[in-house]
Amino acid sequence: MQAGIVGLGLMGGSMGLALKELSMFKSIVGYDINALHLQQALNLGLVDEGVDFEEILQCDVIFLAIPLEAMIEVIAKLKGVSKHCMIVDLGGAKQKVLASIPKEMRKNFIAAHPMCGTEFYGPKAALKGLYRNKIVIFSDLENSGEFQRALAKEIFIGIGMQIIKLDSKSHDRHIALISHLPHIISFALANTVLSQEKKEMILALVGGGFRDMSRISKSSPIMWRDVFKHNRDYVLEALEIFENELAKAREMLYKEEYEALEVWMGYANQLQNFV
Amino acid sequence: MQAGIVGLGLMGGSMGLALKELSMFKSIVGYDINALHLQQALNLGLVDEGVDFEEILQCDVIFLAIPLEAMIEVIAKLKGVSKHCMIVDLGGAKQKVLASIPKEMRKNFIAAHPMCGTEFYGPKAALKGLYRNKIVIFSDLENSGEFQRALAKEIFIGIGMQIIKLDSKSHDRHIALISHLPHIISFALANTVLSQEKKEMILALVGGGFRDMSRISKSSPIMWRDVFKHNRDYVLEALEIFENELAKAREMLYKEEYEALEVWMGYANQLQNFV
Repeated sequence: MQAGIVGLGLMGGSMGLALKELSMFKSIVGYDINALHLQQALNLGLVDEGVDFEEILQCDVIFLAIPLEAMIEVIAKLKGVSKHCMIVDLGGAKQKVLASIPKEMRKNFIAAHPMCGTEFYGPKAALKGLYRNKIVIFSDLENSGEFQRALAKEIFIGIGMQIIKLDSKSHDRHIALISHLPHIISFALANTVLSQEKKEMILALVGGGFRDMSRISKSSPIMWRDVFKHNRDYVLEALEIFENELAKAREMLYKEEYEALEVWMGYANQLQNFV
Repeated sequence: MQAGIVGLGLMGGSMGLALKELSMFKSIVGYDINALHLQQALNLGLVDEGVDFEEILQCDVIFLAIPLEAMIEVIAKLKGVSKHCMIVDLGGAKQKVLASIPKEMRKNFIAAHPMCGTEFYGPKAALKGLYRNKIVIFSDLENSGEFQRALAKEIFIGIGMQIIKLDSKSHDRHIALISHLPHIISFALANTVLSQEKKEMILALVGGGFRDMSRISKSSPIMWRDVFKHNRDYVLEALEIFENELAKAREMLYKEEYEALEVWMGYANQLQNFV
């Protein structure tokens, strides 16, 4: 089989490295709309060969690792792939992408969301082992073809991932809380400090807490613009819950209700039972 | 010289381990109001010996590594230490503690804030090397005695720290943004998810972003209650800036101004030039 990867950044490039370790692919080819990125990906050995988009259509397995709006455009161009072709999208929001898929292509399609990544992006961010021992969420898997479901399981288990199945609506709602909200918070925290006149002096004092809390604020603005666009309603819902929670803390602090604040923080400590 | 540590948790216990590597102390003794913690600290070898509080008064160097309200109580009990005694507080907010110091003891006192730690607490959280290659902020150092200033520099440089001097007002204002705000955000993020009916299912999906953003929500509620109490005004100020920044993002999302949202995130990316 031949695998093709559209988008050779952090996720796509790392997928190239992961697929190379499987014995099932004769070759792994890549396409990137950015010629520099394609060249970088080849130099880094993320894929075996760079190809034109037309050649991607001939692949047995096609991974889409691009921003969500571009994903919808590319899916429209994949019309006419063969019955046994598998198209896997690695995007971070599912409902809109799935709604965009032409009915006749739906069985070809696997909606996969690997719960891993880093704040870096582009081919140079690609990492061997990025997917290993991480979770991947398959959404609305029952709508994928039987052949594609079996192949997807083989590949994702093969690269070391644990599969969780979730309907696309629950995916988007839960992921808004567990991933999209933390990102928007991190961007806001970074901007809070960067907006300060004395930011250089303040940032010279950084300890581990701020470092961890601000790490994902370095993530790709284009990728995240599309995620927030695709999952707007659930992100707004998650933001409202968070803002209310933060307002509770602010009120307790304002009213100097320190015992209540301590109880509120103690409740947060329960997270250690889960994560 | 003999060193005494009051409070044998993460910071005090790690200080014991760090001081043991210096040749300047004949012995390092420890006191903890919690008898179990004292026993654990001894079992873990964090200090050479456990002592009564009265014996701490005889030490040449006294480290205070306890919650800020307890710190003020203990400082009052340290009245009468000798001229060359050095008392170092390791607390995370400075103005109120410094204001509480009796004038006749002010030269004995060094206000030090090591910018390091973990989310864990208690003696079992103590780590060898916690302080190495980290920053320590000395506040209002000019009010400390010449002897104490020289000794503090020797000790903190000796355990591998980089010293930054900052007046206590600037310390509290900057640290509200860079440390206290991230903690209150992390507690609020944890509570946002923990308040969900389907929290188990949601938390099964956790990736690296949420993991990092929620890590410090596991921190000690008692310690943080006191920090927030001591630095209430600046924390409220920092919260207001952050809440406005987050409201900007919410507004853009609500109004579907995705290009503006992308610019806002791109601005946050500038953090990579500093951290």
